[in-house]
Amino acid sequence: MKKLLIVYSVLIGLFILYLYNSNIIESTSNHWETQGLQGEITDKYVMVTFQSGMDYWKSSLKGFEDAASALNVSVEYRGAANYDIQEQIIVLEQVIAKKPAGIALSAIDPYELTDTINKAIHAGVPVVLFDSGASESKAYSFLGTNNYNAGVTAAHEMANLVNEEGEVAVITLPNQLNHQERTQGFKETIHNTYPKMTIVAIEDGKGDRLNSKDVTHELVEEYPNLAGIFATEANGGVGVGEAVRLDKKVGEVQIIGFDTDKGTLDMVDEGIISATLAQGTWNMGYWSLLFLFHLQNDLTEPQILPTRDSAPLPVYVDTGVTLVTKENVDFYFAD
Amino acid sequence: MKKLLIVYSVLIGLFILYLYNSNIIESTSNHWETQGLQGEITDKYVMVTFQSGMDYWKSSLKGFEDAASALNVSVEYRGAANYDIQEQIIVLEQVIAKKPAGIALSAIDPYELTDTINKAIHAGVPVVLFDSGASESKAYSFLGTNNYNAGVTAAHEMANLVNEEGEVAVITLPNQLNHQERTQGFKETIHNTYPKMTIVAIEDGKGDRLNSKDVTHELVEEYPNLAGIFATEANGGVGVGEAVRLDKKVGEVQIIGFDTDKGTLDMVDEGIISATLAQGTWNMGYWSLLFLFHLQNDLTEPQILPTRDSAPLPVYVDTGVTLVTKENVDFYFAD
Repeated sequence: MKKLLIVYSVLIGLFILYLYNSNIIESTSNHWETQGLQGEITDKYVMVTFQSGMDYWKSSLKGFEDAASALNVSVEYRGAANYDIQEQIIVLEQVIAKKPAGIALSAIDPYELTDTINKAIHAGVPVVLFDSGASESKAYSFLGTNNYNAGVTAAHEMANLVNEEGEVAVITLPNQLNHQERTQGFKETIHNTYPKMTIVAIEDGKGDRLNSKDVTHELVEEYPNLAGIFATEANGGVGVGEAVRLDKKVGEVQIIGFDTDKGTLDMVDEGIISATLAQGTWNMGYWSLLFLFHLQNDLTEPQILPTRDSAPLPVYVDTGVTLVTKENVDFYFAD
Repeated sequence: MKKLLIVYSVLIGLFILYLYNSNIIESTSNHWETQGLQGEITDKYVMVTFQSGMDYWKSSLKGFEDAASALNVSVEYRGAANYDIQEQIIVLEQVIAKKPAGIALSAIDPYELTDTINKAIHAGVPVVLFDSGASESKAYSFLGTNNYNAGVTAAHEMANLVNEEGEVAVITLPNQLNHQERTQGFKETIHNTYPKMTIVAIEDGKGDRLNSKDVTHELVEEYPNLAGIFATEANGGVGVGEAVRLDKKVGEVQIIGFDTDKGTLDMVDEGIISATLAQGTWNMGYWSLLFLFHLQNDLTEPQILPTRDSAPLPVYVDTGVTLVTKENVDFYFAD
């Protein structure tokens, strides 16, 4: 009798526990369904780039991964090893075949990947583009730097460094669209806003350290009063820095570089390069995943079939630039 | 003895239940901390506009509210009742004084609110701008329509409607920047892409239905072969539609309008207006809240103090336009 009572009590206790517990689990899962943005760990989102070895992608991938852990979904990185259009198309085809939850793509060429991108969209795989776009494709969004505005920022900073007067020059890649835009933004801002400043030369640095160094030596000789150089590309900036150091013009010729590779950051730290422009690469990756997540889970509105003229998501995101100087350069080394 | 045993059993059962329960709650809250984007229901985000009575804000507010319920945070809407700069400044000051978790602001004027916005930022209240910006302010981002690109979309659709040839006209507000940009995008695209099309007139509709109607009557008389009119503003589009109906030119003169007020949608439904451009207002509100949430919860990177040249968030988001025709107009009525 005693034993029976104990058994009953324990059974009743366990039953209460069971009821209570299942109740909690139910209310918890309801909670998750209605509150908080969260996906399935089995949903895999893929980032696809070209030249997969480049340090440049690390920060975008970090943003992509950070967003994935915030949303509790999975990510994978796939890149073509080389700077090769056909290779990237093949990698992209392979990724599409696995039907991932979404693809964030940096397109090696603005036109050649359009068909493959559209194929993914038609197969129901959401695609957004980051860093390098493909404007004729049906991808839902492009997240990258507005290069014209980056040039504007460089111009204001240059004016600030040279007290708004004197001769300045640009070393760029004159045949590449993003560099044309950076140069244009710089040029127009100097012309329109700083009447005491003149752009005396716009030279081709060929995206190369040595070439940019040679061009700088010539510029410094030709324009002895040169007050500043804007290098629209990372290798060029380092070459300009080397030339200015050799010519003992550090502090006299202000240099503004681009991007945050180690060579550039070292020269910012040493005071040879006055400032460089950090692109919003982490944001490109982070918000690419957020966008893909919203497409995958039908959280966008209007929920209309993709056409050239339907915009379920913002069509363009300018991730901006941040000015990196001696004051905040340590933050970028830490990356 | 028996009773004592029962009491013991029940107590032990309750203790187990207590342990088990507290365990579940703990593991659940850990789960929330590490997975899913979710805030505190006590965090209140505020949307501030001017002319609070306008239907136009409804969709942005819906996006703001939808994001809030996804993230489990609270929202409030505050608007100046009138089209009055001082009134909006006062409303904004009142909102800042309550130290909300963040403010999404549509600025009535691009310059007059700058000081008040900066005051909020300095007080640690995140601000993003939507629909109408204030580019000199320290607000973290602007989310709105790229009006030039909207004009480009209108031009391609017009070309499509008139089989890429013939005379077309624009009715606009020539003194307002957003309308200048829409007109410019339309004009340049027609000029550069459609050699058999000509823009014969760009007229001032004064943002008014009756005025736009009168201007249209005159245009139709002066250019009997007129194939299309792009009205860059909603009231104007309805006026153009009325004139074309009265002049019995429906189907002969293609009309493209702007926005999705009831008057415009009715005319799309009746086939008088061929297409109208819906702005991404829901996305403006939705992503404004997502951005503010990331600022409030320190989820952005780089986490640098706000300066003119630091971009913890994307600095500009083009929410795009969606083409509304007879085929998808029902979706917009449903809003």
